[in-house]
Amino acid sequence: MKTIGVLLFQEFELLDVFGPLEMFGMLDDVEIRLVAEKERTVASAQGPRSVIDDLMADDRAYDILLVPGGRGTRREVDNPHLLDWLRRKAADAEYVASVCTGSALLAKTGILDGVKATSNKLAFDWVKSQGPGVHWQPSARWVEDGKLFTSSGVSAGIDMSLALIARIFGAAPARQVATWAEYSWNEDAENDPFAAA
Amino acid sequence: MKTIGVLLFQEFELLDVFGPLEMFGMLDDVEIRLVAEKERTVASAQGPRSVIDDLMADDRAYDILLVPGGRGTRREVDNPHLLDWLRRKAADAEYVASVCTGSALLAKTGILDGVKATSNKLAFDWVKSQGPGVHWQPSARWVEDGKLFTSSGVSAGIDMSLALIARIFGAAPARQVATWAEYSWNEDAENDPFAAA
Repeated sequence: MKTIGVLLFQEFELLDVFGPLEMFGMLDDVEIRLVAEKERTVASAQGPRSVIDDLMADDRAYDILLVPGGRGTRREVDNPHLLDWLRRKAADAEYVASVCTGSALLAKTGILDGVKATSNKLAFDWVKSQGPGVHWQPSARWVEDGKLFTSSGVSAGIDMSLALIARIFGAAPARQVATWAEYSWNEDAENDPFAAA
Repeated sequence: MKTIGVLLFQEFELLDVFGPLEMFGMLDDVEIRLVAEKERTVASAQGPRSVIDDLMADDRAYDILLVPGGRGTRREVDNPHLLDWLRRKAADAEYVASVCTGSALLAKTGILDGVKATSNKLAFDWVKSQGPGVHWQPSARWVEDGKLFTSSGVSAGIDMSLALIARIFGAAPARQVATWAEYSWNEDAENDPFAAA
């Protein structure tokens, strides 16, 4: 059994979270835990609110850590308590994945320094400014560097998640999950239809 | 301003709901309301729980009604209170859309009788049995018949939602939203990579 901890904050991007969780959630041996700093419910940028399973103070460990993007990242890059928690949990996790501007939060903790990573292409300059020591990739659907997986904007998180499922559980379960979801998986990390200009 | 009411029930499918809501939620003139029968929070089939905005007893009107699928539909096709609410709200709504086995719920209310519709391809026989008078389409990414939009499984709901956004707000906003989400929109309703065998 693997646990996936998903960091939520006010104004997270809906599909950054629930695209990946649809895919992981179809696997029998994955438990999903939504984590927030101190709120029991958190509102997405689009409006819908989620119920939180764990608070940061619970200090729970996660095998996989998922960090979404969304408008809220512009605020949270200046939240030292959140960044400290993220740095510690990312160090302990077996895999760390971000979607969209979630990589700005990871970059701000320093754990992406010297690492290849990507992000949302429409916010690329701002994200880069959060981690000058990161090897930012302007053209990549997602990037894998060791245990760190970072994806491009929003929908790219689904393609990355299937690649992470393939890494952890094998290619066959990843393809099975994509078929169940009637999802046409872009399996090529270098095939980026939205590469930064 | 358009309101979109989304019917949630225990064990709804995550991406059936949050794929479409990512797309609608990026538009300035859409308000999202999550509706349930009587619960204040509802758990998805994958685990994550959502906070409900309206109960059926509030009897609120919605411009657009969205009905997801998921394991819970197998139970809710036998819930007369839910079906009665759905029949009334669907009659009043400007547009009605379903994702995956959500069309089984719509079919059970009778409002799809004589209408062209589709559903998840892996549950197609069961869905068909819920509405023998429906003109079920075994090969369609989604189907539009008047004000009724029904999509194939899970991810197909995103393609259908962009088509519905195009219908309501125009093709340019639909393409803009897809680009913001770095989503490669399958714009052709007849292009169904997962057509029923």
